[in-house]
Amino acid sequence: MAQRDTTWGTERLGALSDGVFAIVLTLLVLDLKLPDLPRGYAEQEMIGALADRVPNLVAWVISFFLVARIWIVHHGIIANLARCHRGTITWNFILLGICSLVPFGSGLIGAYEWDPLAIALFSLIFGASGLALGLLARHAAVETHLHHERTEPALLRRQWLYHAIGLPAIALVSILFVFVATFVSLGIWLLEPLIALSVERWSARRRRQEGVRS
Amino acid sequence: MAQRDTTWGTERLGALSDGVFAIVLTLLVLDLKLPDLPRGYAEQEMIGALADRVPNLVAWVISFFLVARIWIVHHGIIANLARCHRGTITWNFILLGICSLVPFGSGLIGAYEWDPLAIALFSLIFGASGLALGLLARHAAVETHLHHERTEPALLRRQWLYHAIGLPAIALVSILFVFVATFVSLGIWLLEPLIALSVERWSARRRRQEGVRS
Amino acid sequence: MAQRDTTWGTERLGALSDGVFAIVLTLLVLDLKLPDLPRGYAEQEMIGALADRVPNLVAWVISFFLVARIWIVHHGIIANLARCHRGTITWNFILLGICSLVPFGSGLIGAYEWDPLAIALFSLIFGASGLALGLLARHAAVETHLHHERTEPALLRRQWLYHAIGLPAIALVSILFVFVATFVSLGIWLLEPLIALSVERWSARRRRQEGVRS
Amino acid sequence: MAQRDTTWGTERLGALSDGVFAIVLTLLVLDLKLPDLPRGYAEQEMIGALADRVPNLVAWVISFFLVARIWIVHHGIIANLARCHRGTITWNFILLGICSLVPFGSGLIGAYEWDPLAIALFSLIFGASGLALGLLARHAAVETHLHHERTEPALLRRQWLYHAIGLPAIALVSILFVFVATFVSLGIWLLEPLIALSVERWSARRRRQEGVRS
Repeated sequence: MAQRDTTWGTERLGALSDGVFAIVLTLLVLDLKLPDLPRGYAEQEMIGALADRVPNLVAWVISFFLVARIWIVHHGIIANLARCHRGTITWNFILLGICSLVPFGSGLIGAYEWDPLAIALFSLIFGASGLALGLLARHAAVETHLHHERTEPALLRRQWLYHAIGLPAIALVSILFVFVATFVSLGIWLLEPLIALSVERWSARRRRQEGVRS
Repeated sequence: MAQRDTTWGTERLGALSDGVFAIVLTLLVLDLKLPDLPRGYAEQEMIGALADRVPNLVAWVISFFLVARIWIVHHGIIANLARCHRGTITWNFILLGICSLVPFGSGLIGAYEWDPLAIALFSLIFGASGLALGLLARHAAVETHLHHERTEPALLRRQWLYHAIGLPAIALVSILFVFVATFVSLGIWLLEPLIALSVERWSARRRRQEGVRS
Repeated sequence: MAQRDTTWGTERLGALSDGVFAIVLTLLVLDLKLPDLPRGYAEQEMIGALADRVPNLVAWVISFFLVARIWIVHHGIIANLARCHRGTITWNFILLGICSLVPFGSGLIGAYEWDPLAIALFSLIFGASGLALGLLARHAAVETHLHHERTEPALLRRQWLYHAIGLPAIALVSILFVFVATFVSLGIWLLEPLIALSVERWSARRRRQEGVRS
Repeated sequence: MAQRDTTWGTERLGALSDGVFAIVLTLLVLDLKLPDLPRGYAEQEMIGALADRVPNLVAWVISFFLVARIWIVHHGIIANLARCHRGTITWNFILLGICSLVPFGSGLIGAYEWDPLAIALFSLIFGASGLALGLLARHAAVETHLHHERTEPALLRRQWLYHAIGLPAIALVSILFVFVATFVSLGIWLLEPLIALSVERWSARRRRQEGVRS
């Protein structure tokens, strides 16, 4: 019912997104289930029960820092927008919807530690998050009337390419390795920040070289 | 104890509402319950258990995007207000109270997939949300001393009519079909965005025609 | 480690409080537990199971609107402050701590519907919330160097008197009636908004009369 | 993909952190588990079941006020920054990650009241929070280009020293006492605010004396 061309400031878009990210980040810890010991247990059993949680702790670290990475990129995209319209809000909800599935994915890994299907679903969710993040960046890049004077469309276009191609590609590799070696499927997500950093440095060097040539 | 005529800015009204909407959106995923498999299960059982979750996933998609729609309309209404008073806050809490029942309604559907009563309650909650949203829009339209210079009372009046009549009507159709075909009862909610879009276009065309005549 | 006299704006104090209130409001619905029916249940059983939830729904309505009332008063108090210091933050945390116990209290009522001890604890929590709210209002009234030009110290002092005396008094009556008639113990909380409104009107009339005399 | 030297305002950093802190504070109450009594229980059993919750209530009070203390310090650190960059966000996420483990630690104590390992883990989490808080303060102190004109680098440096040394030291004492007297391990955390206050007063007196000498 809103006018097609109504635009708003981005404060509440950011506030709602921060709320969803904060809850996702905090719910993840619920997958570190408390040990379930009988009355009059021996201390040895508590140590064993907590040691059993170590794979879950690894899954928690991966999930927490992937969601943190998504927040950082989201924060950077929205900071490039002075205003938003219904399209921005729709792309943002698609991203939030996929991110709100993360606790389901990491809960599956928490309950069925090395199950291939659980890890494949976990990777699928993060791959889809990357795609949605990339599409949000693309939207922000092309809707020039939402920009402010410090907006960097080139930066938004790089975000779009890396996240819409890079994260689904990592997810694909992760899913393929599910049938070979599940620890690679999870481990590759630990490498993602390094991959992102390398791509960023290589891209910055290329831009400098092109700047020199021209 | 506040003065009758005290008004405040809408920042904290928006922040509290964003918090409630963010939690409702994120709690919905808890209805996608994790499969409960015995130790030493076959991979086939995991696939079956996850396939059993597909109706829940459909219910999740419907709930998520209906709550997202409510947020979008709420955001548009509040953006039309420069200030709020106790009446605004009261109507807003009635809306938030009904919205906070959504996880109960969609949890019922999650647990008792095609139960007619569960679907009727689910539809009742969304119909009531629409009514509350419409009443908030009506309040915003008539309390002219809360407006700022860019407020569009005509837009608020259209919001009031569509949501206070349209969503309860869809809910009524959904509840009636519960006794005939439950998939129609849920499916009609998937059509709601299309219905809203059609009404919006038709209403915009009519306004243009009236503009031409006068 | 902060300087004794450091002051800050109230944005983040409000944001943290809004977060806690939003979560408390939304968690309350978790006490409306889903019915637990066996496979192949009769529709009659679902109707019965949902009808069993009606007392919980009443407890939910009472809790939701009491927390909403506390938020409204909190919002009004903080809006009277331009800045806050460590004392403000400490009183605010005492209030938030007590409010975060509300889901425990209403969960008790949800699980043990008419248990006298459950209702007494529920009333104790709301009485203590009122006391904490009153003490926050008192702090806001006396710390004049935190005020802005539109601050109304007389309003804050009335808030302090009503909440620090009124709500604990209602709680006391509620707790005493636990041994006589538990429905009075819960019902009196439904009357609280009316009591507040009457006190407010009487107090406004008295102020007008005094204004005439002087 | 962001420019190395991109900086942003701290609004959304604060909002995300407030969201995480609000959820952690509110989730803590879930460890005050509801009593689980059979149908037709005697009122005596309810009293006993609630009395059994007293140690959990003590653990809740300790956790709530430790998280509140962390929020107060976090609020003070971020208020010293005009802007933030990726480094600030990363240190902040490390702190939030550790804080989001608090409900796991206090849940362990809630379930296994005086278990030495549970208390050791609880103390480890708060010691690590202190270290992360100290490192965030240190980052804020040294990144002078993020400061505004009222930033107090000396205050930030004191925060860094106290939290990065003090809280891990208290955690160490707590963990050592786990093998001797578990009530000391928990009780020392109740003393932490007093220790902080004493250090603060002693440090303020020393600064005044140095001011006199010079």
